[in-house]
Amino acid sequence: MKQKKINIAIVGLGNVGSNLYKHLIKNKKNIQKKTNVDIVIKYVSAKNRSKKRKIFIPKNKWLNNYLDASKNPKIDLVIELIGGSDGPAKKLVFNSIKNKKHVVTANKALISKYGDELSKLAEKNRVNLEFEAAVAGGIPIIRSIKEGLITNKINKIYGVLNGTSNYILSKMSNSDNNFEEVLNDAKKLGYAESNPSNDISGEDSKSKIQILSALSFNSFINREHINVEGIKNIDKHDIKNAKTLGYTIKHLAIAELKKNKLIQRVHPCFVSRGSYISKINGVLNAVIIEGKPIGKFTIQGEGAGPGPTTSALVSDICSILRGKIKLPFSIPNKNRKKIKSTGIDQETYSSYIRLDVTDKTGVLSQITKTLSKNKISVKRLIQNPFKSKKFSSIIIISHKAKNSNLIKTINELSKKNFIINKPKFFRIEEI
Amino acid sequence: MKQKKINIAIVGLGNVGSNLYKHLIKNKKNIQKKTNVDIVIKYVSAKNRSKKRKIFIPKNKWLNNYLDASKNPKIDLVIELIGGSDGPAKKLVFNSIKNKKHVVTANKALISKYGDELSKLAEKNRVNLEFEAAVAGGIPIIRSIKEGLITNKINKIYGVLNGTSNYILSKMSNSDNNFEEVLNDAKKLGYAESNPSNDISGEDSKSKIQILSALSFNSFINREHINVEGIKNIDKHDIKNAKTLGYTIKHLAIAELKKNKLIQRVHPCFVSRGSYISKINGVLNAVIIEGKPIGKFTIQGEGAGPGPTTSALVSDICSILRGKIKLPFSIPNKNRKKIKSTGIDQETYSSYIRLDVTDKTGVLSQITKTLSKNKISVKRLIQNPFKSKKFSSIIIISHKAKNSNLIKTINELSKKNFIINKPKFFRIEEI
Repeated sequence: MKQKKINIAIVGLGNVGSNLYKHLIKNKKNIQKKTNVDIVIKYVSAKNRSKKRKIFIPKNKWLNNYLDASKNPKIDLVIELIGGSDGPAKKLVFNSIKNKKHVVTANKALISKYGDELSKLAEKNRVNLEFEAAVAGGIPIIRSIKEGLITNKINKIYGVLNGTSNYILSKMSNSDNNFEEVLNDAKKLGYAESNPSNDISGEDSKSKIQILSALSFNSFINREHINVEGIKNIDKHDIKNAKTLGYTIKHLAIAELKKNKLIQRVHPCFVSRGSYISKINGVLNAVIIEGKPIGKFTIQGEGAGPGPTTSALVSDICSILRGKIKLPFSIPNKNRKKIKSTGIDQETYSSYIRLDVTDKTGVLSQITKTLSKNKISVKRLIQNPFKSKKFSSIIIISHKAKNSNLIKTINELSKKNFIINKPKFFRIEEI
Repeated sequence: MKQKKINIAIVGLGNVGSNLYKHLIKNKKNIQKKTNVDIVIKYVSAKNRSKKRKIFIPKNKWLNNYLDASKNPKIDLVIELIGGSDGPAKKLVFNSIKNKKHVVTANKALISKYGDELSKLAEKNRVNLEFEAAVAGGIPIIRSIKEGLITNKINKIYGVLNGTSNYILSKMSNSDNNFEEVLNDAKKLGYAESNPSNDISGEDSKSKIQILSALSFNSFINREHINVEGIKNIDKHDIKNAKTLGYTIKHLAIAELKKNKLIQRVHPCFVSRGSYISKINGVLNAVIIEGKPIGKFTIQGEGAGPGPTTSALVSDICSILRGKIKLPFSIPNKNRKKIKSTGIDQETYSSYIRLDVTDKTGVLSQITKTLSKNKISVKRLIQNPFKSKKFSSIIIISHKAKNSNLIKTINELSKKNFIINKPKFFRIEEI
């Protein structure tokens, strides 16, 4: 077979971009063997050219303007590592595909927002758009759904999709530290970005589950009705209570089909301490798929960092090098469904409710009255006095109840004058 | 894009073959959407044509002779589900590839024995030979190594690869039953074949780890020096002792590179009860890969059964339908290495040793003398009297020692006149 040559441009040279650069240089021959293609890093671009990097980049490889990567006729494949759903990343990827260049990106925000448009454009222009690195770091979850599980009828996909949140929760669970303390440590250690708001708030997991959902259910990306809650409200007492009650708190992203409607949600969950997902600690990510005929399928690995992300990027690059255009979402856009979705209002959940109250007569009676009025029945109730003795913490495990009723109850209770802290409410997930 | 058509033949219509037949008929349109190919089951063949099956097969689809599948010019792709490393399966697959037909097989015995020859033949004839279903049921482990982890430098791959053995060990662990009782139950429930000797002896796991090893290390299949032990020797007392000591017994297959030499082994292992692998229960399979840059990567799912196997077969079929010949072992055969291997004689392991002895003076002293002579140092020793009081069980957890010394010690001890049952010896695996 005659060997081909492909010219690529890497745009964005942070930790991931630099690591990819090094890996591609080092594995040039390896890639040749596996794809029969000679890969050449023709150009690079970065916001800050003079930033200190551990790689040597010859001067003639630098583009004057990052957008030249999408225009330069010598470039076949553009690797976008800028990040962000809009701005330069959006411009670069749209223009590259318009100019019939293949694109590999690790940008979940971009794909979850513009993935459908980009997919149509890529299909029209017969180029590849690959984004394995956008979800779950090095774990080949997208490739597994598109190829390994092809023709499976998936009805649920869920998991731990954000390494930072998971690292913080794991650390809180193994220490007596509170959220802010652990977050500060995580920043120092490089497990959280200096601005981790997208990770903490659940926005990052939301983008990821939307992408997985579209792939799993052969649908367009659905951005409606998605319930997103972050981990900020979890404090060390909740962590401790969860343990005492036999649970672990995990921040999960879940997408499932129920009566042909899509339900997507991202929120902290109480999961049984014996469950598989409760053992996914630190920066690990895990994705679980329930489908037919495969049954239950699980995939786990490091969810972020230069190494794992490089692994995913290279799998995308090599998939393109091997030729044969693959559609970004596996099937032609005309065959993708516009799936109906619904919120979680009518869904039922068991839940953990924590009420910090002033310790006086009649409080318990008022609480149970509110619960009962809203059709919340109590499975377990524990009252623990504070050290000061004037206050106490009431922990309730509820039986399954409608989400709307649970929220209404919490809102009503939070207005009571005996409540001294914002009530805590977390759903219990039976997985 | 113009739609293509492909004619396939399914040879072997047991549980898996019948399930695949049904699935392909049901998913014809689905497959068309994802591959742009119209898949037609042109012919089928089975040893016993009149066997009761839950599928309807039109008369004109039956081949008179199974080998016709490899000769009939109308057939593009042959699916071999006969099983066995030699005999009809071998004939069918070799002839099909010789006649330039693509082949999909679930046959680990065949691939581990003739995979290299077949791979060369397939490369020469420019046809696909795919065998995702041969290892770990529905888990897309082969695809993950070949594509998802492409260019990763893997240094270790291991896991639970035999559902029957794992089911038996899990059941023994959850009951007070012995090996034979559990095996009989497993047969009744369909979790063990009527002749499960390949599963129980480790032969099945051996074939699988050899295949994974060749894929992970870009080498030819290595059949030398491989240490294989089955699960027959594990009795309920060992299971119970393991529990007491904080371990679970798992039957693992392990391949790793140490100082550029390949070490492959299949044997029961004591693993820490907190470890990930200790939770892989029932018919589950799991594979763990350690590599760079991915880090530690884990994949888990049902290891056998018609559903998962069909999922894997269809992923192979669709990969072929999508076109572009992929090499069976990912790289051209000329680039595959002949990797050097070594046995485990010089490797060191901690171990569990159980000695059932007559309870008389001097026994312990003779045992410790034998251990010390062979440089085995004791980390923990527990002596439990039998109910009858005349005998007792001595359990030793040894520090790390050379495998050859451990084996020598066991052999020497087994000849002592105070030993009443064959001594038990299992390695402790720190994973």
